[in-house]
Amino acid sequence: MTELAFSAWVQDVQADVERALETFLPEAAAIPHKLNEAMRYTALGGGKRVRPLLAYASGDLFGADRRALARVASAVEMIHVYSLVHDDMPCMDDDDLRRGKPTVHVAYDEATALLVGDALQAQAFQVLAEADTLPPARLVGMLRLLAEAAGTKGMCGGQAIDLDSVGLSLTREELERMHQLKTGAMLRVSVILGAMAGRDLEPRELEALATYSKAIGLAFQVVDDVLDATADSATLGKTAGKDAADNKPTYVSILGLEPSRALAEQLRREAHEALAPFGEQAQRLRELADLIVQRKA
Amino acid sequence: MTELAFSAWVQDVQADVERALETFLPEAAAIPHKLNEAMRYTALGGGKRVRPLLAYASGDLFGADRRALARVASAVEMIHVYSLVHDDMPCMDDDDLRRGKPTVHVAYDEATALLVGDALQAQAFQVLAEADTLPPARLVGMLRLLAEAAGTKGMCGGQAIDLDSVGLSLTREELERMHQLKTGAMLRVSVILGAMAGRDLEPRELEALATYSKAIGLAFQVVDDVLDATADSATLGKTAGKDAADNKPTYVSILGLEPSRALAEQLRREAHEALAPFGEQAQRLRELADLIVQRKA
Repeated sequence: MTELAFSAWVQDVQADVERALETFLPEAAAIPHKLNEAMRYTALGGGKRVRPLLAYASGDLFGADRRALARVASAVEMIHVYSLVHDDMPCMDDDDLRRGKPTVHVAYDEATALLVGDALQAQAFQVLAEADTLPPARLVGMLRLLAEAAGTKGMCGGQAIDLDSVGLSLTREELERMHQLKTGAMLRVSVILGAMAGRDLEPRELEALATYSKAIGLAFQVVDDVLDATADSATLGKTAGKDAADNKPTYVSILGLEPSRALAEQLRREAHEALAPFGEQAQRLRELADLIVQRKA
Repeated sequence: MTELAFSAWVQDVQADVERALETFLPEAAAIPHKLNEAMRYTALGGGKRVRPLLAYASGDLFGADRRALARVASAVEMIHVYSLVHDDMPCMDDDDLRRGKPTVHVAYDEATALLVGDALQAQAFQVLAEADTLPPARLVGMLRLLAEAAGTKGMCGGQAIDLDSVGLSLTREELERMHQLKTGAMLRVSVILGAMAGRDLEPRELEALATYSKAIGLAFQVVDDVLDATADSATLGKTAGKDAADNKPTYVSILGLEPSRALAEQLRREAHEALAPFGEQAQRLRELADLIVQRKA
């Protein structure tokens, strides 16, 4: 497959996800107007949709139909977006720019931002629970994995460790564990749920996907840290240089810039290797690993 | 059944729910310590456990086993507790006392309070999704109802309307709609999920439980407004007189004190009438309606 075909696939999936979110988010005309409008403001029309892309790539590999994938992708993206909205609030990172737009607490107010995040999380579970083309027993398992990835053993737990790490000098292992929870858990579950939208997974398939996910999850964060240290806010669509300013430990602060870039490249190769058992069919997942490492924003 | 038997049953269920929450909340010794400890701080050892009591009463009526009920009760209570934690934050009600203890953002900090709420919501869905004694198809339906009751068409939606109503003079109908979402949706789903933990419901059973739930949901709020206007903070375990101070519309401000008390009594009778088809077996649900209306805190 050519790079052009990959770009076209990315755009196709992004458009599919945008349509799905349009459908699965509450209508702006419905009560409560402001909350629903703010949910749509933050979830629609932006973002790289990395988690949905992973779910679709993995789902295509396991023969998932697009109706189920649209629900999986919307659910993981809603969890992701809610986490950004809460993370940007003054009591957390206090950021006023996200995806090139004012953050929710700036465009609306803090109380609305709090509720937007809360309601998006509930909506994520609802959208997935309504995936009635999937066998109920498998769907229950998927809901369980989503909840675990979002909670204290996953994303929220990683956020908590992140908060507690401000001003501390973490070891590379501690930093890695934090990111495996904070961003890794949701990237991993996006890959797994996409595959499960196709069929039940054999243990060795689950293991291969988990190895792939772990590599791209870390790579994603290493690249984030490199970009935060080297790119400008306009390119990133969010405030650059925040980590250093906030005195947060990063791969760049622990390893240095060039070793961080080398690590990202090594993780990209590990991701490719994990996909070997799936052969040519896993090309989209390989290309996504490349995209994650080579992105400029 | 005597009043004594009812008190004993309430205490028995409260103890059962406390044990279940102890089990289903993350261990304080697990990483991230502070987040897990704060989740336990706010969820354990307090509260009237009204939603769990409703789930157990309804579950007993429909032959649910206690293992499944413990999960249903823990899930609805976790959603309720998360909503209190977020509701108490400075950007919402800015309250520093809850269930007689400092609120989470006071005992810890705002960022932790935000994450405690987020993680409790995820944990609620996980605890229910792991109810593996229930048939998967019914369990999926239960998860869907829980998500709907928690989100923009339920509790979060009611919170949003509440926020937008500060300083406005609502009609009684508008006030009722707000409360049917804000507290009614979660009370209703507690009754329904408790019953579904026993078996699938027939439409007329669902309707009777919905009518009962609507009446007690409104009664609960009317009594809350009466208590806020008449009781002291020590009795309530939270700051009394907040609604008037915050210029929030209440039943007392719209109807007056005595008509509000009369309305609560009327709703109690409506709740009893809705239970007529279930006969003597629904005694616990009747007694809970009485408890909700006659409580002093």
